[in-house]
Amino acid sequence: MTPRELLRILDGVRKQALSPEAAAEKLRHLPHQDLGFARVDTHRNLRCGFPEVIFCQGKTTAQIKSIARALLSHGGNLLATRADHAAYRAIRSLDRRAKYHEAGRCVTVELEKLPRPSGEILVVTAGTGDIPVAEEARVTAEIMGNRVTALHDVGVAGIHRVLRESSRLSQANVVVVAAGMEGALPGVVAALIRRPVVAVPTSVGYGASFGGASALLTMLNSCAAGIGVVNIDNGFGAGYLASLINHGAQAR
Amino acid sequence: MTPRELLRILDGVRKQALSPEAAAEKLRHLPHQDLGFARVDTHRNLRCGFPEVIFCQGKTTAQIKSIARALLSHGGNLLATRADHAAYRAIRSLDRRAKYHEAGRCVTVELEKLPRPSGEILVVTAGTGDIPVAEEARVTAEIMGNRVTALHDVGVAGIHRVLRESSRLSQANVVVVAAGMEGALPGVVAALIRRPVVAVPTSVGYGASFGGASALLTMLNSCAAGIGVVNIDNGFGAGYLASLINHGAQAR
Amino acid sequence: MTPRELLRILDGVRKQALSPEAAAEKLRHLPHQDLGFARVDTHRNLRCGFPEVIFCQGKTTAQIKSIARALLSHGGNLLATRADHAAYRAIRSLDRRAKYHEAGRCVTVELEKLPRPSGEILVVTAGTGDIPVAEEARVTAEIMGNRVTALHDVGVAGIHRVLRESSRLSQANVVVVAAGMEGALPGVVAALIRRPVVAVPTSVGYGASFGGASALLTMLNSCAAGIGVVNIDNGFGAGYLASLINHGAQAR
Amino acid sequence: MTPRELLRILDGVRKQALSPEAAAEKLRHLPHQDLGFARVDTHRNLRCGFPEVIFCQGKTTAQIKSIARALLSHGGNLLATRADHAAYRAIRSLDRRAKYHEAGRCVTVELEKLPRPSGEILVVTAGTGDIPVAEEARVTAEIMGNRVTALHDVGVAGIHRVLRESSRLSQANVVVVAAGMEGALPGVVAALIRRPVVAVPTSVGYGASFGGASALLTMLNSCAAGIGVVNIDNGFGAGYLASLINHGAQAR
Amino acid sequence: MTPRELLRILDGVRKQALSPEAAAEKLRHLPHQDLGFARVDTHRNLRCGFPEVIFCQGKTTAQIKSIARALLSHGGNLLATRADHAAYRAIRSLDRRAKYHEAGRCVTVELEKLPRPSGEILVVTAGTGDIPVAEEARVTAEIMGNRVTALHDVGVAGIHRVLRESSRLSQANVVVVAAGMEGALPGVVAALIRRPVVAVPTSVGYGASFGGASALLTMLNSCAAGIGVVNIDNGFGAGYLASLINHGAQAR
Amino acid sequence: MTPRELLRILDGVRKQALSPEAAAEKLRHLPHQDLGFARVDTHRNLRCGFPEVIFCQGKTTAQIKSIARALLSHGGNLLATRADHAAYRAIRSLDRRAKYHEAGRCVTVELEKLPRPSGEILVVTAGTGDIPVAEEARVTAEIMGNRVTALHDVGVAGIHRVLRESSRLSQANVVVVAAGMEGALPGVVAALIRRPVVAVPTSVGYGASFGGASALLTMLNSCAAGIGVVNIDNGFGAGYLASLINHGAQAR
Amino acid sequence: MTPRELLRILDGVRKQALSPEAAAEKLRHLPHQDLGFARVDTHRNLRCGFPEVIFCQGKTTAQIKSIARALLSHGGNLLATRADHAAYRAIRSLDRRAKYHEAGRCVTVELEKLPRPSGEILVVTAGTGDIPVAEEARVTAEIMGNRVTALHDVGVAGIHRVLRESSRLSQANVVVVAAGMEGALPGVVAALIRRPVVAVPTSVGYGASFGGASALLTMLNSCAAGIGVVNIDNGFGAGYLASLINHGAQAR
Amino acid sequence: MTPRELLRILDGVRKQALSPEAAAEKLRHLPHQDLGFARVDTHRNLRCGFPEVIFCQGKTTAQIKSIARALLSHGGNLLATRADHAAYRAIRSLDRRAKYHEAGRCVTVELEKLPRPSGEILVVTAGTGDIPVAEEARVTAEIMGNRVTALHDVGVAGIHRVLRESSRLSQANVVVVAAGMEGALPGVVAALIRRPVVAVPTSVGYGASFGGASALLTMLNSCAAGIGVVNIDNGFGAGYLASLINHGAQAR
Repeated sequence: MTPRELLRILDGVRKQALSPEAAAEKLRHLPHQDLGFARVDTHRNLRCGFPEVIFCQGKTTAQIKSIARALLSHGGNLLATRADHAAYRAIRSLDRRAKYHEAGRCVTVELEKLPRPSGEILVVTAGTGDIPVAEEARVTAEIMGNRVTALHDVGVAGIHRVLRESSRLSQANVVVVAAGMEGALPGVVAALIRRPVVAVPTSVGYGASFGGASALLTMLNSCAAGIGVVNIDNGFGAGYLASLINHGAQAR
Repeated sequence: MTPRELLRILDGVRKQALSPEAAAEKLRHLPHQDLGFARVDTHRNLRCGFPEVIFCQGKTTAQIKSIARALLSHGGNLLATRADHAAYRAIRSLDRRAKYHEAGRCVTVELEKLPRPSGEILVVTAGTGDIPVAEEARVTAEIMGNRVTALHDVGVAGIHRVLRESSRLSQANVVVVAAGMEGALPGVVAALIRRPVVAVPTSVGYGASFGGASALLTMLNSCAAGIGVVNIDNGFGAGYLASLINHGAQAR
Repeated sequence: MTPRELLRILDGVRKQALSPEAAAEKLRHLPHQDLGFARVDTHRNLRCGFPEVIFCQGKTTAQIKSIARALLSHGGNLLATRADHAAYRAIRSLDRRAKYHEAGRCVTVELEKLPRPSGEILVVTAGTGDIPVAEEARVTAEIMGNRVTALHDVGVAGIHRVLRESSRLSQANVVVVAAGMEGALPGVVAALIRRPVVAVPTSVGYGASFGGASALLTMLNSCAAGIGVVNIDNGFGAGYLASLINHGAQAR
Repeated sequence: MTPRELLRILDGVRKQALSPEAAAEKLRHLPHQDLGFARVDTHRNLRCGFPEVIFCQGKTTAQIKSIARALLSHGGNLLATRADHAAYRAIRSLDRRAKYHEAGRCVTVELEKLPRPSGEILVVTAGTGDIPVAEEARVTAEIMGNRVTALHDVGVAGIHRVLRESSRLSQANVVVVAAGMEGALPGVVAALIRRPVVAVPTSVGYGASFGGASALLTMLNSCAAGIGVVNIDNGFGAGYLASLINHGAQAR
Repeated sequence: MTPRELLRILDGVRKQALSPEAAAEKLRHLPHQDLGFARVDTHRNLRCGFPEVIFCQGKTTAQIKSIARALLSHGGNLLATRADHAAYRAIRSLDRRAKYHEAGRCVTVELEKLPRPSGEILVVTAGTGDIPVAEEARVTAEIMGNRVTALHDVGVAGIHRVLRESSRLSQANVVVVAAGMEGALPGVVAALIRRPVVAVPTSVGYGASFGGASALLTMLNSCAAGIGVVNIDNGFGAGYLASLINHGAQAR
Repeated sequence: MTPRELLRILDGVRKQALSPEAAAEKLRHLPHQDLGFARVDTHRNLRCGFPEVIFCQGKTTAQIKSIARALLSHGGNLLATRADHAAYRAIRSLDRRAKYHEAGRCVTVELEKLPRPSGEILVVTAGTGDIPVAEEARVTAEIMGNRVTALHDVGVAGIHRVLRESSRLSQANVVVVAAGMEGALPGVVAALIRRPVVAVPTSVGYGASFGGASALLTMLNSCAAGIGVVNIDNGFGAGYLASLINHGAQAR
Repeated sequence: MTPRELLRILDGVRKQALSPEAAAEKLRHLPHQDLGFARVDTHRNLRCGFPEVIFCQGKTTAQIKSIARALLSHGGNLLATRADHAAYRAIRSLDRRAKYHEAGRCVTVELEKLPRPSGEILVVTAGTGDIPVAEEARVTAEIMGNRVTALHDVGVAGIHRVLRESSRLSQANVVVVAAGMEGALPGVVAALIRRPVVAVPTSVGYGASFGGASALLTMLNSCAAGIGVVNIDNGFGAGYLASLINHGAQAR
Repeated sequence: MTPRELLRILDGVRKQALSPEAAAEKLRHLPHQDLGFARVDTHRNLRCGFPEVIFCQGKTTAQIKSIARALLSHGGNLLATRADHAAYRAIRSLDRRAKYHEAGRCVTVELEKLPRPSGEILVVTAGTGDIPVAEEARVTAEIMGNRVTALHDVGVAGIHRVLRESSRLSQANVVVVAAGMEGALPGVVAALIRRPVVAVPTSVGYGASFGGASALLTMLNSCAAGIGVVNIDNGFGAGYLASLINHGAQAR
């Protein structure tokens, strides 16, 4: 609610077009009155710039379909993560434009073409096992209106692989790096460029990788600055953060 | 080494101004030959946009002074973190412009006024105990050429404190949030705005806070997206990442 | 019981002012003699106000049926948690009044209508994934004679969702909050009301949620006071504690 | 802000006693406008039933004194925890009624006699080493207007010690149990009574007690239901929760 | 091998009743010569008082059968733990006397009746879920020649259940206590008797029991002395240790 | 005690075959009546065979002195662990027979010579750093009436050192093994003998020894059976358990 | 790229057989230009002495086949670890010389007979459960051109088993030791010999072995020096490191 | 002892050149008779190629001096690690040749010049804070008769720093890499060379470095093979292992 809307309501009261009681009802939930609507998503879109996202894991197909229907009814692009084929079919039965991104296990429905910032997001993986997480990040960033390119399998065990791509790394507006096992790649990348790195540890590994904890700790302890870390395997979170950074200053 | 430099060397060979052997010596370390300079810092400034930073913890005052002298000799602003008064005095003996930022335990020497991006970084704390970490972030971001404002003691135990600042939160280009104990504030902030949040867990707390691990896990597991997490008590890293984000798209 | 009291009783017997049977009755419970009864459940009902509860996980259907039969033979309401359909059918074969609560995976047999306290328990979830745990809490509290209402999916990623329910939160006698992932909701709720919050972390999440450990630590480290934490996914324990609090002072 | 206040403002607008602009200013921060006062504590007192508490650890004496002055100026009782003698002297210089509770390391200033609920809180320790934590709980509960009694050194290594006090345990409205090392006492107490147990693990112990983590896990995993756990060594949190429970239903 | 045996061999050489080569063969593995035999188990039986035990988990049925055959060929009783029905059938095909102990998942073949010490081992469980571990302990101790009795489901949630058995507890030569969840029972038992307690944590529990780690820590941190702890779910180890203690002093 | 037994005693009183005093004596221990005495220690001596032990850590000298006075007034030997010189002087002021055992940081007062079992306890250390813990075990076992010998610095880094003592190991009734760092010695010892091993991990080590956790885990996971583990650095607990084992069967 | 190649390119420029632009293109990626080829493996073979190894876990059979085809086309021996039968069949369809090593779950294709160093690698296991990991190490070392022998089931629970093999241990150039549970064997072996020990913890065990973490910590904390530890269950890494050590000085 | 030696002794008995008693004495400690000497070190020197090393931490100066005296009396070089100045002075009072290596906190006494292998050990650090650990490794390797060179502060935050030293890295026989914080350097180094890397994590760092655990996990999870990891801060262990590798094959 903008100041203008507030003044208009109050003006309605002064002009007796609106009873104090009716105005009170309108104002009761301020500054979150709009949140009282069944249309939760609408508000989130306004507040955060993107509607709610459906995290499918642990939800039934029926629940997913029901949430998707509600979200689609308010426009805005739809993103469902950790989605299986059943979830895809359910969403597709609601809207034919639904796409399934198998590698990243996401469903998207692009209802509106968002304006794309001039900059680009580069998604990098240390190994092929990290690609599903990277794909989740890529799909997330794309549906949020970003241009995304990818660079796979450039982990530090062959350090030249990433070094010879340093000009590509430098050209991106923000770089998402997904890495499991030792998780050292984000630190190497951050030390090569002057743009932010979004580091996403993956659970790829065995033994003392402890489900991604080793990679997570490596990224948090990186000597190189300029790295923001997200949760293990959280490709969505990485793509979302990268999108916010990429859209960032330009929108101002 | 720019492509132009490379062509000039090769041209020298063609024109026989340079023997193949001499050229080979020059080229031997490419693309990293330039890194062989004693001026490590100079290169870092070029590559990452800011010179090396002195992490004073575990270094003797003599070591700090010696590194500071080397860095100051190449121009660029100087930042020393985790610095005590002795470190400050040592640096000040090198350059009178040195300033000590007591709350954030940093020394800065501003040799050049960096162009400031139009946007602003907002540094937020959950409690007063988090202020030293927040100050380290603020000083870091300022010496890197950002406008920074602060908002203290708005933790979720009085959720209204942060909610009523939501317009200030929304106006910032990027928000740094420092929080110890339960560490829930970054998630609440991220859910209110459409800009990135840099979350820095602090070791403030006791018992099962396990030195900041509880706050760290909270931030990584946040339901709200758009959060990049840095290491516990790593105010420098938070300020640095925020600066990269803030300078970001505009520089392009 | 002091030696003097003991001697006085025995003296009463010697003087035949007290029959051996009456003395035995007095001594029988001293201080735990009554515990010698085979009717363990009866005693627990007397001692703690509710019969033993069957925790079905790890028990065979035959074992569950056998324990249920023993408990039902002594009256009192029956509660079986972590119960599957087979357990339900086994209990239903003993008593037709058995009900299966699918979402909360509980079986109840309500043999007596317990007097309900005037106050009410409010069960709150941060996300839809937390509902099974919340349902276990609700069923537990209801079979123990409480009025329970629920409020779902009001996690801190949309902080307004919980804030606009603050009057409902304030009206409850005790609030149970189930939350996974970052687990920040109980702290926010506790800061809004003047009644106790029972916080139950859930294992909902992935990556660094470490099976609910992250939510657990968040709840323990909450800045807001007035929170009692129970084990991860322990909806039963939360409902039980809430019931004790709700019945509490009024019974005195 | 009550509904009545809201209607009065709106009525003022209708009657043109108040300009829309002035009303907008009044309403701008609703429902948290009142929180914009410098009197933060006043609001907390209204919302949660007790003013803010000063957690002295990590604060300078000057900071403590300054917060205490602000709190005292609004009336309400004052509680400062983890307070040393210097903190005490600083607070005492503000108000002669300040008392120092050495064992529990707390300062209290009782400005108003709160009405005491008829029930009583019993604070129990497993060993003498747990007494400081128990004392913090006791002082907290007393300044919040509760009658509190204590029972020390009744840990399970001499199980009879707690059993022979079972009638005292049963008479309390709520029992706070502080225990370090194995932390088994709260489970034993909860199994003896029909009232809630607030369990506070302490860091008393050595070796594999891991700073109280062992006791914490024991309490969370207790077979006996009816236990709410707070953070390690968090006597304040335990006393606060017990007070909410004790005041509970009666206030309704 | 005693010094006497050694001198006798050497004397045989001097008297030329024994060739140097034959003596060398006898002496070759001293003091571990006997270990050079293919009959590894024979030596273990001599050294430790019981043959090797087959830990079936992770072994194929063929491997189990092959080891069992080797062990049976040297006499001595056979024990195979973590054995399924296939393992049982394989061993039974070697010796008809094989018995399968379903609850404890063990196979035994009793080739010789060991002399039983006069004392008795008491195996105690906190809950019914702990019975498989307790049964493994019981079967182990019995095949090693001990009289064993059992007492189930006497956990601290109904403390009277164990207290009223205190005379039985006191009569045992050693008490094995298996407990999951909070694992408090061994400490309570140890405080009631003057004989050693062998504590075996079980992985029974959920949430923050972390696979038995909570019970393990509780037992290690017990205030009551006289407790020796074995690995989580290690019923075999508990039964073995109890057997050594029970056979102990009497064998001397 | 069955109801029948109780009635028989009471009937004896009625028939004046039994004086009230004699009946009181019979009933005194029923099953915890005796626990009503103020003389807690006396009872512990009766119940567990040794009076309470003073764990000095975290107690003031005054508290230690006061507990020591109470214990000494009831006879029985006194043991105070983790005692400094001040504690020693305080106890010595109560009884001139007090002795300070510097290496093990214990004070003992031997009021009665306990009968010594014929067997012997052997205390073994892996390295010289483990000696303080071993000494605590030795002093504990001696004051409880055991003959104790020691064998130091025979860790597995020179495996022959322990092997050549195998006959000494075999002659002991029970072996206490204290080891830090990798903690492998108890497993090696247990595999050489047919008597129980009490394993006490020590916090000796650095880096990934994590304060003794590494040694603790090693001991719990030992392939060799017959090992009971106590808490890290818990020499007292090791000596106590060894004493119970040593006194064991013979006392029966 | 050898110095000779570099000089040849520069000579081409001088002789104007090559334009500076063409030369620049050739030199652009130096010293990693060759890495730009699809033949990644070729470079790794040159740099590290062995081609890339296919870690099959988490890869589809199609991906494995595709990588194997690329590697085989460049010659050099092929090793695929964590390979199932499908992976084997896929590789065998590319080259008939493919062999499947079932116990170690590896596929090898030996295209060239590497010169074998005179020394030998000895692979040792503590128990039979460790053999799969040991086999992975053996196959790795053999395909890398080493003579390897094995010694199984000589864990410390029968310490003589390893001691009587001390001459075999001493003769190896490097000893790989695989051990789960307590993981003490590498320390015992290292103390017997003057050659390096490569220690590989395995996840064999249960309860507090925590998936191999216990064995890992033991190996890191070993009192005996001369041990290099690799990741849990990482037989490949152990065999690789042993191969480097074995080829080592001789290759110089 | 070889079979030949054994036969010679026995032959001496048969020929009556040796009495059975004298032979028994010779054979008594076989195969560890030599270990029966008071000269423990002598044997270790023979067995492992270097005498015992004094780990000073936790030892008194008197103990250190006494052990040093015993070791010096048997010749061989002496190494004392974690030594302070007092330890140095004590050892120097025994032998004037004692040297104190301040940065690595070691004392050495070089009694014999060991033959140096032709190869060289390179000790590398990621940052200046890792130098003390690296120095301990260097001093250890030197006193064991190796040529050692060092390369400091080449961590991955400036990846070019290590890359441009790749020829130096390749020339070493074995590379020791000490790194704290993220600990990624050993993996990068291992991927550049064909010789073994000894990785030593250091406790340098803060926050989520958890005392070196993060660096340790990184090293264990390295994608690059050829790395052997030692304990956190264990420079001695790294130098010792590197020495064994360097002396290795050449000594054969």
